[in-house]
Amino acid sequence: MTPIVQTFDEVRELITPLLRKMVHRLDPSTRLVVSYHLGWCDKDGVPANTNGGKAIRPSLALLGAVAAGAEPEAALPAAVAVELVHNFSLVHDDVMDGDAERRHRPTVWAQWGAPTAVLAGDAMLSLAHEVLLDLRSPHARTAEAMLAVATRELIRGQTLDIAFESRCAVSLAECVAMVRGKTGALMSVSAAIGAVLTGAPPAMTDALTSYGDHLGVAFQLVDDLLGIWGQPEITGKPVYSDLRSRKKTLPVTWAIENGGAPGRRLAAWLADEPRDATDAELAGVAELVEQGGGREWATREAVRLAALADDAVAQAGAVSKPAGQLRALARYLTHRDA
Amino acid sequence: MTPIVQTFDEVRELITPLLRKMVHRLDPSTRLVVSYHLGWCDKDGVPANTNGGKAIRPSLALLGAVAAGAEPEAALPAAVAVELVHNFSLVHDDVMDGDAERRHRPTVWAQWGAPTAVLAGDAMLSLAHEVLLDLRSPHARTAEAMLAVATRELIRGQTLDIAFESRCAVSLAECVAMVRGKTGALMSVSAAIGAVLTGAPPAMTDALTSYGDHLGVAFQLVDDLLGIWGQPEITGKPVYSDLRSRKKTLPVTWAIENGGAPGRRLAAWLADEPRDATDAELAGVAELVEQGGGREWATREAVRLAALADDAVAQAGAVSKPAGQLRALARYLTHRDA
Repeated sequence: MTPIVQTFDEVRELITPLLRKMVHRLDPSTRLVVSYHLGWCDKDGVPANTNGGKAIRPSLALLGAVAAGAEPEAALPAAVAVELVHNFSLVHDDVMDGDAERRHRPTVWAQWGAPTAVLAGDAMLSLAHEVLLDLRSPHARTAEAMLAVATRELIRGQTLDIAFESRCAVSLAECVAMVRGKTGALMSVSAAIGAVLTGAPPAMTDALTSYGDHLGVAFQLVDDLLGIWGQPEITGKPVYSDLRSRKKTLPVTWAIENGGAPGRRLAAWLADEPRDATDAELAGVAELVEQGGGREWATREAVRLAALADDAVAQAGAVSKPAGQLRALARYLTHRDA
Repeated sequence: MTPIVQTFDEVRELITPLLRKMVHRLDPSTRLVVSYHLGWCDKDGVPANTNGGKAIRPSLALLGAVAAGAEPEAALPAAVAVELVHNFSLVHDDVMDGDAERRHRPTVWAQWGAPTAVLAGDAMLSLAHEVLLDLRSPHARTAEAMLAVATRELIRGQTLDIAFESRCAVSLAECVAMVRGKTGALMSVSAAIGAVLTGAPPAMTDALTSYGDHLGVAFQLVDDLLGIWGQPEITGKPVYSDLRSRKKTLPVTWAIENGGAPGRRLAAWLADEPRDATDAELAGVAELVEQGGGREWATREAVRLAALADDAVAQAGAVSKPAGQLRALARYLTHRDA
């Protein structure tokens, strides 16, 4: 177990009691569905302890608070709120994208149908507000407002992502704008919200926001690289999954704009009538992204953004141990293989 | 124009500037979709002024505030918040129920697909919190928490409603529990939230909550009666629409439990394999509900609840003119024909 995985497990243990308390407020049917999605039980409600995701966002929220000199416990409601918003978006995105599997189990809509998944997502979004509304702290309102803005950004990002599907060309700038909404906004708020809730000064919360901002895009760059060149047995996704679905990801859009002849061939392939492609064909397409420089650029860009995230931590004037953990988290997320 | 329609129009005029300001915060695509749903434009964004619904909930919020002696303007954010939550639930319910038409136009999912409708609903739920988060008032938090609880109740009600579809028998108690969630909870919060936001004493806000509670169930009873015996040319719904979809409505479940032989025949018809029924067959089913006493009971029950709503207004110690308007609203909603 690497140190960072230990941190994720610790964070999950810290946030689970409050997360469970919030989920318990839901009606029994919706509670079962949300508990299943979070990995606490199987579809019949039999307790289980399956993978409920990496807990990146709550880790950021707790580390941000500790970096500001507070106890992690003081930021628990913020950590639970960002985890709820993240999972609301996952459950709704799975409906919209028609994804039938997540964390090696059927997604909520695949298990119970789209109506149940829409309601489960709605319930988590609403609970995210409730957990902050329960607090007496004067900072809870600021934290909640940040979360509402991030939700709007998530919606903007997903709206763009859906629109891109039916377009044959997407610019790198458009792709970055989509990623900043879909991934960056909540990462950024997660990094700052714990510190905000514990009353940290604006200079520190601004620096943490900037850290999360860089980290979010870096995280997505790595995700996009893994979606093309990841090892299926490690990522759990089929080989060339993002190419197969003709996703206009960051390395792909970069290669199209800057990759000369291979980039033009890549653009032509994407503009072609979609049909089932063989693995050999997809290997050729991955080669075009690589020849067009998309792989190298995305790798370098992720490293550059992780360094900017490090700089932001340095500017935050954070307590040294959690500052080191924030840097370790950035390193881990930009060097992961799953 | 009856006086009450004039009130609805006035309310719509009062809330529209703030509602538009909130919707304007959304990304352009989502903004267009929400504006279409609210009747402000056609599907291409060309300004229109079509029916955006009756504005019952914002009317309740403004009247509640005025009944507490405040200016209606002070309750505008509360009125906008309940209207946003109501419309979030309409757009998502249309996806879940597969309803392709609302207010004589294609529903959002029918126009743009389910993903767009899921996102538009999410956006409205989040904006409902934002409009209250923008306020400095110490009462905004209480108002927002009430809204969050009502959202959970809406989800509980819709969850039950969906579950009822695949069951052949539903008890009257279960049906009432569903209605209190799906219709009652938001009506009840709407009646009290304006007064809460303007700092009215608990005795008054409790009485308004109780008024809204009774009104919500009375409203649904009338809706259910119109779904069976309403004039299609006035309601805009096809004849016998609720029977055609074998909905276990309040008059139907009452007749099954209390209606002797006709009730048993009604239960047997509902338990039968669903297939397209002729108008003549549905007329016979409506006759069973009537013979089983469901129509008379629902009519009497709506009148009884409207009287309880009146009593609650009397107990609220409200300013007399708005108190009269709250009573007029209860009368209108329980005697409407559409």
